[in-house]
Amino acid sequence: MSAEKRLTELGIVLPAPLKLPPGVRLPFVPVRVVGRRAVISGHGPLDGEGNICGPFGKVGTDVSIEQATRSARLTFLAMLADLRLCIGSLDRVTAWVKLLGMVNAAPGFNEMPRVINGASDVLLEIFGPEIGAHSRSAVGVAELPWHIPVEIEAECEFA
Amino acid sequence: MSAEKRLTELGIVLPAPLKLPPGVRLPFVPVRVVGRRAVISGHGPLDGEGNICGPFGKVGTDVSIEQATRSARLTFLAMLADLRLCIGSLDRVTAWVKLLGMVNAAPGFNEMPRVINGASDVLLEIFGPEIGAHSRSAVGVAELPWHIPVEIEAECEFA
Amino acid sequence: MSAEKRLTELGIVLPAPLKLPPGVRLPFVPVRVVGRRAVISGHGPLDGEGNICGPFGKVGTDVSIEQATRSARLTFLAMLADLRLCIGSLDRVTAWVKLLGMVNAAPGFNEMPRVINGASDVLLEIFGPEIGAHSRSAVGVAELPWHIPVEIEAECEFA
Repeated sequence: MSAEKRLTELGIVLPAPLKLPPGVRLPFVPVRVVGRRAVISGHGPLDGEGNICGPFGKVGTDVSIEQATRSARLTFLAMLADLRLCIGSLDRVTAWVKLLGMVNAAPGFNEMPRVINGASDVLLEIFGPEIGAHSRSAVGVAELPWHIPVEIEAECEFA
Repeated sequence: MSAEKRLTELGIVLPAPLKLPPGVRLPFVPVRVVGRRAVISGHGPLDGEGNICGPFGKVGTDVSIEQATRSARLTFLAMLADLRLCIGSLDRVTAWVKLLGMVNAAPGFNEMPRVINGASDVLLEIFGPEIGAHSRSAVGVAELPWHIPVEIEAECEFA
Repeated sequence: MSAEKRLTELGIVLPAPLKLPPGVRLPFVPVRVVGRRAVISGHGPLDGEGNICGPFGKVGTDVSIEQATRSARLTFLAMLADLRLCIGSLDRVTAWVKLLGMVNAAPGFNEMPRVINGASDVLLEIFGPEIGAHSRSAVGVAELPWHIPVEIEAECEFA
């Protein structure tokens, strides 16, 4: 099953590339290719036009679990958009390797796995259980850039 | 020296696979194999039956350094149990690559290295200084799932 | 362009290896080589003699952005010192793969990207845009060892 066809079937449109907020400089690449590995920088949720999108703040107080789960899904789609730009087609992905999900957790909030399932679930919908099998950690960090609720970095292999 | 024999010599019995708490869904794999790499998901401490085990809470207040160090050891043994299930025998491991140790740190607690030594030390006891040599980071995160005191992810190579 | 020559041109002298504070035991290696990968442990800022150096504390309150950015630069230079010891010459580096920058963030401080630019910028000055292209995440953690303001881990490839 083609990941690109599956995206179309699911009616998913990937966002435009990140529009940097004013005054921000990010001197690194969204995806670094070494051999067959694509190592994907930490991403946050984007709207369709590539703007960093909310809701912003701490998950558990400012942002609900449901909202954060959706932010994790949007974050993964932003990663896919950059990955496609880098390698040309998502159909080249042969194996997802790992996700590191970092949640902007309010004190006492510990449902990071449910939040990051928003990314894992859409990954599996698009790539299926074989290519899509991935290792994962999901932890609560103290602060994230722009007060985004979720940041995820990842790695996959491609042919 | 065989890692499996060394485990026996040390009298270490690896825990049963994780018993998911009710209502929890983890849509990823404990260990992802790509080529010769085994990339191990974030794990927490398990008792012998595979239940997530305490003490729970913040290291430095709810949980002592000694308790957290033991939790880091149990966490590494839980990783080994999943690794053995995945690749068949720990004797196939040719090199440990890295550990990322994340401690559920109380405000002001900064002895993360001592805590994660609980994992590094048992790793070296089992695998010895050549196969067991590993890179490591040990940091304090804001929150961890189920209020576990320690979460560790890792990578090794195998033949 | 040779990275070693570039270092000389820039007048950069790498620090001496880490002098462990009394009572500290770190049972892991600063750099783990597997195949062509060099996986670099979490490092903090060092002075020229290899002492962990301040300013210490939370970025945003105890430590200014400018100070933390300089600490990130010093941290990257400490990583290079260990990398050179391990592989003999920085000219062997063929590709930077990733940086994971962890900032000891005061509550509400979210300029982690600006802080970690201190590492990315000097990386690019030394290695240039092709070898130096890297993926990156920059997040705020709850606590770091010795209350250092920044900890960075990294990976590169070498020939």
